[in-house]
Parts: sequence; structure tokens; C-alpha cells
Amino acid sequence: MTTYETRTARILARLDELAAISEDADGVTRTFGTPAFIKGRELVQGWFEQAGLAPRLDAIGNLRGRLPSRRPGAKTFVLASHIDTVRNAGRFDGPLGVLLALDLAEHAHQVGAELPFHLEVIAFSDEEGVRFHTTYLGSKVLTGAFDPALLATTDAQGITLAQAIAEMGGDPRPAALAAAALPAAEWLGYFELHIEQGPVLWENRVPVALVTAIAGQQRVELTWTGLAGHAGTVPMPMRQDALTAAAEFVLATEAFARQQGLGLVATVGQLYIPHAASNVIPGQVVHSLDLRSPDAGPLAAAYAALRADAEAIAARRGVALGWQLVQATAPAPCDAGLNALLAEAIAASGHEVVRLVSGAGHDAVPISAVAPATMAFIRCYKGISHNPLENVEAPDVAAALAVAERFLLNLAATSPSC
Amino acid sequence: MTTYETRTARILARLDELAAISEDADGVTRTFGTPAFIKGRELVQGWFEQAGLAPRLDAIGNLRGRLPSRRPGAKTFVLASHIDTVRNAGRFDGPLGVLLALDLAEHAHQVGAELPFHLEVIAFSDEEGVRFHTTYLGSKVLTGAFDPALLATTDAQGITLAQAIAEMGGDPRPAALAAAALPAAEWLGYFELHIEQGPVLWENRVPVALVTAIAGQQRVELTWTGLAGHAGTVPMPMRQDALTAAAEFVLATEAFARQQGLGLVATVGQLYIPHAASNVIPGQVVHSLDLRSPDAGPLAAAYAALRADAEAIAARRGVALGWQLVQATAPAPCDAGLNALLAEAIAASGHEVVRLVSGAGHDAVPISAVAPATMAFIRCYKGISHNPLENVEAPDVAAALAVAERFLLNLAATSPSC
Repeated sequence: MTTYETRTARILARLDELAAISEDADGVTRTFGTPAFIKGRELVQGWFEQAGLAPRLDAIGNLRGRLPSRRPGAKTFVLASHIDTVRNAGRFDGPLGVLLALDLAEHAHQVGAELPFHLEVIAFSDEEGVRFHTTYLGSKVLTGAFDPALLATTDAQGITLAQAIAEMGGDPRPAALAAAALPAAEWLGYFELHIEQGPVLWENRVPVALVTAIAGQQRVELTWTGLAGHAGTVPMPMRQDALTAAAEFVLATEAFARQQGLGLVATVGQLYIPHAASNVIPGQVVHSLDLRSPDAGPLAAAYAALRADAEAIAARRGVALGWQLVQATAPAPCDAGLNALLAEAIAASGHEVVRLVSGAGHDAVPISAVAPATMAFIRCYKGISHNPLENVEAPDVAAALAVAERFLLNLAATSPSC
Repeated sequence: MTTYETRTARILARLDELAAISEDADGVTRTFGTPAFIKGRELVQGWFEQAGLAPRLDAIGNLRGRLPSRRPGAKTFVLASHIDTVRNAGRFDGPLGVLLALDLAEHAHQVGAELPFHLEVIAFSDEEGVRFHTTYLGSKVLTGAFDPALLATTDAQGITLAQAIAEMGGDPRPAALAAAALPAAEWLGYFELHIEQGPVLWENRVPVALVTAIAGQQRVELTWTGLAGHAGTVPMPMRQDALTAAAEFVLATEAFARQQGLGLVATVGQLYIPHAASNVIPGQVVHSLDLRSPDAGPLAAAYAALRADAEAIAARRGVALGWQLVQATAPAPCDAGLNALLAEAIAASGHEVVRLVSGAGHDAVPISAVAPATMAFIRCYKGISHNPLENVEAPDVAAALAVAERFLLNLAATSPSC
């Protein structure tokens, strides 16, 4: 076994051990602050201690360990991912990145590496946002972007976020949460390893890729209102069918996104016909539109083009259109400098350099607002994620480990002395 | 006021009185055998008595009155419609036809008309089939086509059809139900006046039309199975989106039906995405297809063509198709001889002769299997039906009354002496 294979075997064994800690028996479920979450974090904390990272919990319950640099005025480079999960999750989404980061820091510690930056390893307490319908609680506290108004948010049982933070070892006082941030001046950068959660690397038989941006997202709710009618008595030319109007838009959206190439994706995931019956012409249809692109310009252009398409369809068919923007997130480009080092590391490790856009959100989104940030994606089985079938093969974990270690060495070599 | 206007005023007043009897306060609801149904039927029975029709209840609770002919060996001509309703119905669907029939018979009785046929007026007890999810209980008993296996069917409260029949004045013994049929040899024919329940007469500004056929119907459940995936991470060319496949079929169906002209209609009324979420590419879509045509050949051809379309879409998109025929009813052509008399009556009354296909089902479907049957449709407000907004203007009721009376006189004049 090579060193990387040995280290990989331990990472995979730890993933199994962590995955056995779950709120229920189906797959893996560890949402923010639950007993299973706390138990899982305690397990990881033990590994942080064993690695010599002197871990501590911050005010939002992030587990943070540090390999300090002896260089005066050294900045901090963060390696992180999250240990919370969706419901009925797999073993890799989040924990794989944490355990890879931990292994990299432990190895650096063991070999007595003299890094020109503090290396901070973080297991974020909340990235998925399942319990409180939030996003990125852990990294927002780290970057000072946490909104204290969220503390009054309740979960399905009526427990507030503030209570949950107090019960899981955090500190819900706004001042404490603000003080947990890594000050802007101390950031050197951020790097996260994560499974792709999509099929591109699987289809292209590549183990690791670099991420050029986290896609921006526009989420829209469309409502088509025509005229309900008897499916037998209204001749075709007299109909104002809300579903055929919506169907035309669904296809127009698909055709538009296909023409834009790989960067833009558009999805109608929910569609609902109020008072539906097989013998009633749909009088109303409500559906979602999820639009994502790594580039703000094309995202805005696609939004405008699809809205115009919808309005044209509605006008031509004599149905009314409601168009409601529900959510908008700007694209978060990854840092070009870090990506150059990452590309070099991937190529030097013998892999094709594949550049991907992340269509899913990640902690790199809030972090890229305050510091240079990037990510590497690891191939996962058929692109399946958020599912107990989620899987990553051991050779790909080893490849990711080798690439990340080379990236850190490249970074150390190029970091300015202070 | 003309005679027809006076008679119309009484018909409309009676409709209002009957509509006030309902299971609940929303619109009109009188489903088979309920206390509101019984109370409504008692009201109508009083009018039958007043008209000199010596009414009786048959084994399925149909209210039947008769103006006997003195001609030896006379056959029976039936004028009928139904007095049960859907939930939250309007005032006209069913009762208008019953009260027009009653008025026609009463007038014939008053003027001492010597008809060459027995004139039987029937208020069917169940046409809508809401309570027991049946179809045409009243007319199926009248034609001897009632299936005794239905007696064990239960309503939402667990009451069997047999119990309900007994409680509402019928006789649920199979022999009694069979004996209530009008023997095949006694039938001269059947005529029903009914609101159109569609927009054609409204749009064309015509008060009354003749019906050439009751459309046949094919009801299909389609299931498209693709592959669910993350709306952000699966590039457009790698998707197997069940909803875009279904949308393509919805549009192909609409385009096909539009090309077939007025006779054929096709509707997707229900559509459901299991496990839908705005950020998940639909992995499965289940939807209905309702296909109707007055002609068996084109109906079968449309069914085959749309199935081929669906299979081609599924193959091209790499999704699996499930195609399940849920219900099939053959078209029921109206009697050409009766329609010639009806056309003559419409033209002689000064109206354009418009011929319609009924896309909705009616009691003429089972009756046309045993006797010559036809219908006339009466214009309703914007084609709205099964809705408290259902409306028919008084001049149109008067027009229908005049046409129907002329039709009966035509029929009497042409009926063979026995």
C-alpha cells in the first residue's frame, strides 16, 4: 500500500464509523444540533485531538482545530466541510471533506511541516440547513455574515435556533456569534474537498476536478390561469388550458437551457394543478422554475428570456401569467489564483484538468465574499447524492488526498512571507 | 306573455323551489338517496300528480308518470332527465329536462291530446353517480341493464347501495330491479332535453341544438419514469427528466386533437410528480389522458396514434413509459329518424339547425342500446356547468319548450298506427 492508500483506508473507516451515528435507521440523518449530531461531532472531535489540532467549539457549534504557523504575522488558510446531513443522506456529502482536511493537517503535523500560514480545519455545524430551513449557518458565523434575526426561527417542534445552539454547546448571544468570525484581515484563503453530487466526473471517468464557480440561482413560482371546463364538452379551439400553456413553457425552458451549453441549467421540479380531475380541463397550474448559471450576465439574460417566453405563451393562449421571484443568489466565482495552484496539482498528479461549475450551493458561497476560496470535486458513483446509495471509491479518495496535499505544498511555496 | 313564456315562468319558479332543497348550503347538492334527494323528489312527485300523470316510484327510486294512449298496442315514448346532482351543482343540470318533460305531458293532458303512444315522464334517481361512483343507475334499471353486483357497493359512510335503495323508497331485490325495466318491445323511443354544459351554443348565439351522438371515451393513466437528479448538478444533456417528456406528450396530444376538428377532444386533467421538489429533476410523472370522440373509428385511431407518440417520446428521451387503459366507453349514436323530426322542429321554430356531439355522458348512452334515443341541448351561460354559476335564460327555456312540443307533434303525426 502507498501512504495515500493507507491514509485513505483510515478515512473510509472513519466515514463508516461516523455514518453509524444517525437520528434514525434510514441512511444517515444528522441535522444541526440533534443528539445524533452532537454524538457525531464528539467522535470527530476525538480525531481532531488525536491529530494534535487542539480543537474547540465556536459559538455556532463549528468544530475548529488549528495547526499554527510559527511565521510572524501568518494568515489563516481554512480547510473545511460540514458534518450535518440532509435526511436519509449518504456517508460522503460533507464528512469526506472534513476527514480529508483532518488527515492533511494531521500529516502536516506529523512530518513537522513548517507552513507559512496557520492551517485551520473546520467541521461546519450547519451547511444543509434542514432543521431550520437556513443556509450556511456555520460558514456565515465564520465570515461574520450571520443574521441574529434568525435566532428566533423555530424548527418543526417549535424549538428556536437560539435554544438549539445553547443545547448543542454553542453560544447564541449575538455578540458571541459575531466574535466567532475569523477577522477579514486574517484570511489567507479557503479550500474544500467535496463529492461532485453530479454525473460529470463519473461519465468522463475523471477522479478529481477543480471548481471554477458556484452557480447563482433564480427560483421562480409561475402561475398559469386559464379557464376550467368539462373535458368532454369544450371543443379544442375554445379552450384556455392552463396545463398545455405550462407544458409549452416547460419545453421552451428545456430547449433554451440546452442551447446555452453546460453552464446554465433550468428545471421545473414541482408542478401542481389545483382541483385537478381527469375529466376537467386544468383551469390553473402552479409550478417552480429553478435557473442556475456560474455567470451573472447569462443568468440575468436567461431569466429575462424565459420570462418573455412565458409572457408570449400566455398572450398567445389567452391565459393569465403570474411570475414571482422566490429566491435569487448571485454566482460565487472561485479564486483564480488558488485555482491555478489547484490545476497544477491535478496535472502533476497525472489527471486531466477538468473544470466544473458547482450547480449545488456550498460554504464557499459566503466565504468567497470575504476571502479567496475554491473547491475540488471528487467523483461519486453515477452522480448520486442525498441518498444512501451515495458512494466514492477508495482510489478516488486517495487521488483527492494526493491532489490536495500537492495543492497545499504549492500554496506554501508561493505564499508571501509576511 | 305567450303561452310558452307563461309555462317557462312556472318551470323556472319550480327549478328555484327544487334548488332550495340541498344537502348543504353551497350551491345545490342532492346525491342519490339522501334525505335532500328524497325531499326534492317528493316535491317533484307533487307536480307529477298535479299534472295528472299518476306517478309512482320504481325499484331504483325513479319517479315515473304516464299519459296513456288509448290506441291499442301503443308503444311508450319516454321523456326524461335526472334529479340527482353533483356536489355544489347548479340548478339546471337534470331538473330542467325533467320539468320541461313534465310541462309537455301536462300540457298534452290539459288539451286532451290523443297521442298514438304512451308518453312516460321519468325523473331518474341517479345519473351523476356521485355517491356510489356508479353511472346511470336510473336508466340502467329502466333498460334492464342494471348489474346486481353493484348492490354491495358502499358509499363513503360504508352504506351499501342496497341499503340506500331500501331507505329511499326503492326495492333492492334483484328481481324487483329487473322487473322495473320497460320491456324492449314496448319502447318507441327516448328524448331528453338537457343544458349543453359546453360553450358552443353560447359562442354561436343559438338557443337549442340537436345531439348527433354521445361521445365514446378512453381514459388512460400514463407514467413516465426517468431519473431524479439535483437541479443544479446534472447538465442538461445528461438528464432523463420525466416532466419534460410528459410536457412533450401534453403538447403533442393538444396538437393532434386540434387537427382532428370539432369531433375529437383530448385532455390531460391530472398530473402528479411524486417526491417533487423545486431543486430536484422530476424522476417520475403520472398523468391522466381523457380522449373522446363521437365515432368509434377515429377514437380508436386517436388512441393508437397518441400511444405511438408517447412511445416515440419515451424512446427518444430515454425514459420509461407506462400506459394503462383505465376506462373505455363506446360512442352512442343518436337515432337518425328522431333527429330528422327534431331538426324539422328546430327549423320550424325559426332557429338555425346546429348539430352537436355530446362530450359528456348522458342517460341516452344506455338507452340507445335498447331503443331509438336522442337529445336536444339548451344553451347555458358561457358553457358553465357543475357549478352554482350554471344558468339558462328564460327565452332559451321557452325556445326549448316550443321545439320539444313541435317535435312531439311531428312524432305523433309520423308514428305508425298499430
